[in-house]
Amino acid sequence: MHFKLLQREKKYSGKIIDLTIDRLVYPSGNETIREIIEHPGGAVILCVFENKDILLVKQYRHPFAKDVIELPAGKLDKNEDPLLCAQRELREETGFAAKQWSKLTSLYATPGFCNEILHVYLAQDVYHHELGTALEEGEASIEVIRLPIIEAISKIEREEIIDGKTIAGILLGARKLGIQ
Amino acid sequence: MHFKLLQREKKYSGKIIDLTIDRLVYPSGNETIREIIEHPGGAVILCVFENKDILLVKQYRHPFAKDVIELPAGKLDKNEDPLLCAQRELREETGFAAKQWSKLTSLYATPGFCNEILHVYLAQDVYHHELGTALEEGEASIEVIRLPIIEAISKIEREEIIDGKTIAGILLGARKLGIQ
Repeated sequence: MHFKLLQREKKYSGKIIDLTIDRLVYPSGNETIREIIEHPGGAVILCVFENKDILLVKQYRHPFAKDVIELPAGKLDKNEDPLLCAQRELREETGFAAKQWSKLTSLYATPGFCNEILHVYLAQDVYHHELGTALEEGEASIEVIRLPIIEAISKIEREEIIDGKTIAGILLGARKLGIQ
Repeated sequence: MHFKLLQREKKYSGKIIDLTIDRLVYPSGNETIREIIEHPGGAVILCVFENKDILLVKQYRHPFAKDVIELPAGKLDKNEDPLLCAQRELREETGFAAKQWSKLTSLYATPGFCNEILHVYLAQDVYHHELGTALEEGEASIEVIRLPIIEAISKIEREEIIDGKTIAGILLGARKLGIQ
């Protein structure tokens, strides 16, 4: 670290994110600020069926005012184990559950200004959960898409799938499963 | 869209990000809010040498208070062409330039709350730029790392590289180049 923290100010404390402003000074004496978005982090699920189909969800994303295709995912509750979050979100968003879970990675979504960490899991040995889906009101329009993983990779290459965690999760999972 | 926008309020206008709060009402009559972080977007460069080495940068990231390994990248200036941004950032951060550029994708970093779009380019036919690097004061500690792309992929699999855009860019580029 090549600076000293002069002041930290919580500017906004919100529903999903907080905003903190740090004032720093470099060894030269010059001052600067850093804006930090604090986010609870989340879990992301690459759910792979025996025939190598995967599950995606298409949902309205307000920052882009349009539908975005993503892997099933959700925010961590306070102190929640990321694996339990992944299992909960897969069930709630898609109605599926899985018997075999392994971690693909824990990635930084956008480390320049935000501390969000996304824990990405590979879920296999998939079955229908007896309870089905459980969507919140804001997720009412979620559409579940099942398609072969190689088709999802083609969609990434054609820029029809452009969510960062989804690209990373699918390509990492495909490598792990030996699928090209 | 299954709701109506009741009110939009700019909560913070900052150096790199802005924060806007939208108040929405669902068809049921229930109200909710959406927090939107506005970010100018950026360009990301997978720079591949003839021998399949790539360039990474290791730099201090304040939200995690530690060094993070990433592909060279930078924010778009207002109305800047993403390709020109990519060419500028590659030169400024690494001192290299490239004659052959192609786009890998434009990805959403974290679409749940932020409108950041990252334009990811593959740069080939690489040479030393006569002007060398040009780091800003906040980037003074950037370390440039050159390593074989297959070693970078191993680092992704071992969770030594965990930045989302970097995972996506390296794995997409490797596919495009036929490297496994």
